[in-house]
Amino acid sequence: MSDHELPTREAIEFAARRIAPHVRRTPVIEVEGPAFGLDEPLALKLELLQHTGSFKPRGAFNRVLEAGVPEVVVAASGGNHGFAVAHTARSLRCRAEIFVPATAPPVKVDGIRALGARVELVGTTYAQALAASAARAEHTGALVIHAYDQPAVLAGQGTVGRELEQQSPGVDTVLVAVGGGGLIGGIATWWSRRARVVAVEPVGCPTLHAALRAGTPVDVEVFGLASDALGASRVGRLGFAAAVAADVSSVLVPEEAIVTARRLLWQRLRVAAEPGGATALAALTSGAYRPAPGERVAVVVCGGNADPGDLAAPVSSRSGLAGSPASIPDASPRTP
Amino acid sequence: MSDHELPTREAIEFAARRIAPHVRRTPVIEVEGPAFGLDEPLALKLELLQHTGSFKPRGAFNRVLEAGVPEVVVAASGGNHGFAVAHTARSLRCRAEIFVPATAPPVKVDGIRALGARVELVGTTYAQALAASAARAEHTGALVIHAYDQPAVLAGQGTVGRELEQQSPGVDTVLVAVGGGGLIGGIATWWSRRARVVAVEPVGCPTLHAALRAGTPVDVEVFGLASDALGASRVGRLGFAAAVAADVSSVLVPEEAIVTARRLLWQRLRVAAEPGGATALAALTSGAYRPAPGERVAVVVCGGNADPGDLAAPVSSRSGLAGSPASIPDASPRTP
Repeated sequence: MSDHELPTREAIEFAARRIAPHVRRTPVIEVEGPAFGLDEPLALKLELLQHTGSFKPRGAFNRVLEAGVPEVVVAASGGNHGFAVAHTARSLRCRAEIFVPATAPPVKVDGIRALGARVELVGTTYAQALAASAARAEHTGALVIHAYDQPAVLAGQGTVGRELEQQSPGVDTVLVAVGGGGLIGGIATWWSRRARVVAVEPVGCPTLHAALRAGTPVDVEVFGLASDALGASRVGRLGFAAAVAADVSSVLVPEEAIVTARRLLWQRLRVAAEPGGATALAALTSGAYRPAPGERVAVVVCGGNADPGDLAAPVSSRSGLAGSPASIPDASPRTP
Repeated sequence: MSDHELPTREAIEFAARRIAPHVRRTPVIEVEGPAFGLDEPLALKLELLQHTGSFKPRGAFNRVLEAGVPEVVVAASGGNHGFAVAHTARSLRCRAEIFVPATAPPVKVDGIRALGARVELVGTTYAQALAASAARAEHTGALVIHAYDQPAVLAGQGTVGRELEQQSPGVDTVLVAVGGGGLIGGIATWWSRRARVVAVEPVGCPTLHAALRAGTPVDVEVFGLASDALGASRVGRLGFAAAVAADVSSVLVPEEAIVTARRLLWQRLRVAAEPGGATALAALTSGAYRPAPGERVAVVVCGGNADPGDLAAPVSSRSGLAGSPASIPDASPRTP
């Protein structure tokens, strides 16, 4: 497919077959609502159990396998996309060059190196790293794997939606966190109005929200604890177009709601999500999105690349949910 | 069923129906072998995602619902069983009195209280707490929920096996950690020689291993990092009988292998198991159990009640697996 076309459902079907030998079919767990302060049960797609701890390898494998495995792939990212591209290159036996802003946390840089990739520290922003990666690709002919704005990447991420529908048929609503728009674009394309897709962003990273208001992708300032994963300063044009085409709803959640949702996932389920991975759930636990009675809701828990050391703190009483002490389990309200 | 009879497969079927409204159907994920240093893929039953972070509510709910919900239930445990009984009582709207050795960690005692149970601190050993719980039950008529040595408890734990077989049909071998013998007894009963069931114990908690050698349950001294969950000093007579009847194999794993398996679960899969929950996998990653080529192996990851703060340390080079730095994902060898 051309680099300017939106992917189709068929492209997602192709992607699923193409990447199947390389990605994990991550499980869905159905959980009772009361443990999360909700009336109805919900389905959680545990995509943080994917290789490298996020959904990103789906798009990266699809991009490389669609193009034909080259000698070298390049990408710009100091986070989950960088890990995913390094893993993909290692798995497919090509070399990876990852362009990372010099401001990226050394632990992440070391992690990308540990997966066998060459890391180039460039500038201080993602935009500078991206420009450097594009220049390198132009010079060497290496294959660029964009973090979100390529059709094959969207189609790969869309396989999360396809799997979820197989595992949890009859879902009415799917909540998905938004960074650059690859995951939401793929999932929106998969459902194509057959279910409501709700895009969830932290108040500090409202790139899709701002684009939907403006009618076109616009730059926003990003900040906050999920900005390492969701902090693209402008949503990708493909993800935006796919979200518009599928009539995606957009909600924002405050920082504290993300902290609470992350702790709830740990305390009530022993799922250790990163802030970006808990953002979609935060829309439910904070009331930013309120399902109707009987509405069947699924949430994508899309990443788990954070230090789990701070998960033991009690859930804030502001959430309206009872706190639980460290290491201590599920204090969900009574089941019937 | 009488308190002296082994449960049957039919009892496990009944238990599954009885407890279905109250327990989570925990997911199974199929993972590629190389990420864990293995040749073949394996299926992991993520039972740590159960209510209260371990399999224990299955047996507790089955025991209470079989007996008929009383006013008060009593149990002895300063750990996972105590959490599970407190949760079960809260869910079924009865009171729980949990007898805990005064030596139990305050954080666990607080956790049991946070679930609404009354905690009685008694003596310094599990045996003393157990005796006190039995005396209280005799005096008050409360229902005793034993941590492992009651048929309804075994049947409840056996539902883990039934679910696993539905989710992963055609498994050849199932690895299960052993504490007092409730889980292994239930799972062995479910498979009844239709698959190989391997009982895995830390070298510091070899209660089933010692019983199988002696031909009868015997007291052993227990120690080590998984002894909070697996450190029964003598295997239950029902679990032992069920294990013998089903011709269960027994292997021991060293402490370091449990540490390594726990870190691998985190680094390669973002699953935060407690030491006891990683013990069954340790039999594979340490080579204590070596599957034949093509053997289809499933592992029960049975608990997640530990502080996740120490998961970030690299995997020991002694394991023969490459280390990965903190917060950093899957460095699995190449996939095909």
